[in-house]
Amino acid sequence: MEVKEILFMNKGDGENSYVKSSGYMQKVAAATQPMVSGAVQSFFRENCSNPPLEVLNVADLGCSSGPNTFTVMSTVIESTVKSCSELGREIPEIQFYLNDLVGNDFNTLFKGLTVIEEIFKNVPWFAMGAPGSFHGRLFPRNSMHLVHSLYGVHWLSKVPKLTNEGGLPLNKGKIYISKTSPPGVREAYLSQFQEDFLLFLKCRSPEMVPDGRMVLIFHGRKSADPTLRESCYTWEILAETISYLVSQGVINEEKLDSFNVPYYIPSQEEAQDIVDKEGSFTIEFIDTIVVERGSTWSRPEARARSLRAFTEPMISHQFGEEVMDKLYGKVTDILVLEDSKQGNESSGVSIVLELKKKKI
Amino acid sequence: MEVKEILFMNKGDGENSYVKSSGYMQKVAAATQPMVSGAVQSFFRENCSNPPLEVLNVADLGCSSGPNTFTVMSTVIESTVKSCSELGREIPEIQFYLNDLVGNDFNTLFKGLTVIEEIFKNVPWFAMGAPGSFHGRLFPRNSMHLVHSLYGVHWLSKVPKLTNEGGLPLNKGKIYISKTSPPGVREAYLSQFQEDFLLFLKCRSPEMVPDGRMVLIFHGRKSADPTLRESCYTWEILAETISYLVSQGVINEEKLDSFNVPYYIPSQEEAQDIVDKEGSFTIEFIDTIVVERGSTWSRPEARARSLRAFTEPMISHQFGEEVMDKLYGKVTDILVLEDSKQGNESSGVSIVLELKKKKI
Repeated sequence: MEVKEILFMNKGDGENSYVKSSGYMQKVAAATQPMVSGAVQSFFRENCSNPPLEVLNVADLGCSSGPNTFTVMSTVIESTVKSCSELGREIPEIQFYLNDLVGNDFNTLFKGLTVIEEIFKNVPWFAMGAPGSFHGRLFPRNSMHLVHSLYGVHWLSKVPKLTNEGGLPLNKGKIYISKTSPPGVREAYLSQFQEDFLLFLKCRSPEMVPDGRMVLIFHGRKSADPTLRESCYTWEILAETISYLVSQGVINEEKLDSFNVPYYIPSQEEAQDIVDKEGSFTIEFIDTIVVERGSTWSRPEARARSLRAFTEPMISHQFGEEVMDKLYGKVTDILVLEDSKQGNESSGVSIVLELKKKKI
Repeated sequence: MEVKEILFMNKGDGENSYVKSSGYMQKVAAATQPMVSGAVQSFFRENCSNPPLEVLNVADLGCSSGPNTFTVMSTVIESTVKSCSELGREIPEIQFYLNDLVGNDFNTLFKGLTVIEEIFKNVPWFAMGAPGSFHGRLFPRNSMHLVHSLYGVHWLSKVPKLTNEGGLPLNKGKIYISKTSPPGVREAYLSQFQEDFLLFLKCRSPEMVPDGRMVLIFHGRKSADPTLRESCYTWEILAETISYLVSQGVINEEKLDSFNVPYYIPSQEEAQDIVDKEGSFTIEFIDTIVVERGSTWSRPEARARSLRAFTEPMISHQFGEEVMDKLYGKVTDILVLEDSKQGNESSGVSIVLELKKKKI
């Protein structure tokens, strides 16, 4: 691992301002940098007979407020310099478009950019904040050379419709696909993912230049069955916790039954099918990777903290801020029990995907 | 005035979140929209024999967190649609780069963009936040078609050096050029403005496309003499106030003597000289305009509020937050007295400048 990456990772460690950045996510960011670097290199190699680029436009979708986006920026700058030097080309100016939803803390993100300023003083780079949903258009036509998204694509644009014809909840007592969920739940989730990922690709397609590269990393599952423990572990633990609080009268049962997460963990085949169906991109690389969660993960308290950082905004919105301490306290209790029963998930599964925009 | 402009102006009225947006500034923004509109139209007319633009890149420098930047965006979108329709050209996608210092509240700015989203649903536009100082490079080479800045250019990158050879303060008891300031103060301010405005133009020059337009509006003065009341009114009132607080033992005298504002109010000639010296731009239009401050200005309390909104961040940084209420209370007292003596400045002077990037 590069010194710079370690620097970014340390900076984020334990700081609450970096909401989305768990230690595990930083490990995944670090593990996938060779893919980003490879995509940059292939892009330059393939385009070395064209006139030199004045500007390399790079988007990071779902960038949060750091520090993973800084790791990506660093990799892109380094590999651009390396590629162009090897090819004897002039180094283009690099323009980063850092995207997340309007509610993201862009103020903190922009302040964090000093990390990059300190390191890359002699390479001309610029950073812009691009607020908006990646389920809609974000950039002008034909402008992006490289698009990156770390742990963005598994978020759905909305919760799928999970009620029966009479309007009653289909997924009672659960908040995601579970072994006990009726088949309609699984179908509705897959269908929403298909719709959203297709829309995501359809929006990126006109924005990207021919031969432009897209590197996507998102949670995935290894098995065809979406109800296996590996795929729905987080949501199973949370559903169990919330059910307990319902039984204690702390949370109203209706609130649990009407709640499901806007999130889907696809298999590699499900993702690949949608890329093929959309048709503007060729798949340069696809794989399902397993990243060890590291030593802190062995402590249930650390797992509970990580789970809270990742899920609290959504859970608190539905069930109220006042029950959060009780809720995540119970999560810790459950994780301690799980530990004594059967060990714990010491690794996480991600799908990594490198796409190339087809020539028109 | 267009309905939309009124809408933006009402939205900002009295909201503290829009720090830089006094009612007067909104009046100036509204008054100068025909210039922005004219610049867009001339740009399209001159370029109508070139291949159609895919994207029109527009920067607003020193955009603050709204609402004046929304007025400018609205004008640019409307005039682009109008120009292209008249010329029978396809309407390009419009990409706005909203720039201010890293400390600006971009989160509030981005949330405010819904105003534009609601109005322009059928025109493809995008908005990015571009953090950084306009005294440095902000954008890639050859990328900007239109650059706008409302009340940005009169801010200096730093306070000029205002000490004598022995290191003692030159401008005792004052915070800007004043009738009683020694000539060195005036020269140091002018010299800093020349350096900064030259740097500003030198940074914009490579960023702009040939024939690209720049519309700059900034505080100015009508007379050659920078010590006339019209030019230094705000700073005279503040210096008088702070001196009073020094005499009362509330503020330390050294703090006053060592403080001067990073701000310069040039004459039209001073600004024009620097454009000529820099050499990359032709002056399409330059004028010194007077905008009435409106009826609320007649009340000293309203003037004191406006003055506080504009100056407090800087004054509070030097003299401490704890004395601000006392300080601006005294400002009100002085303005009430001024009123009974001699009326008040019911209008403000601005320089408006339209530049065109020369072909290389």
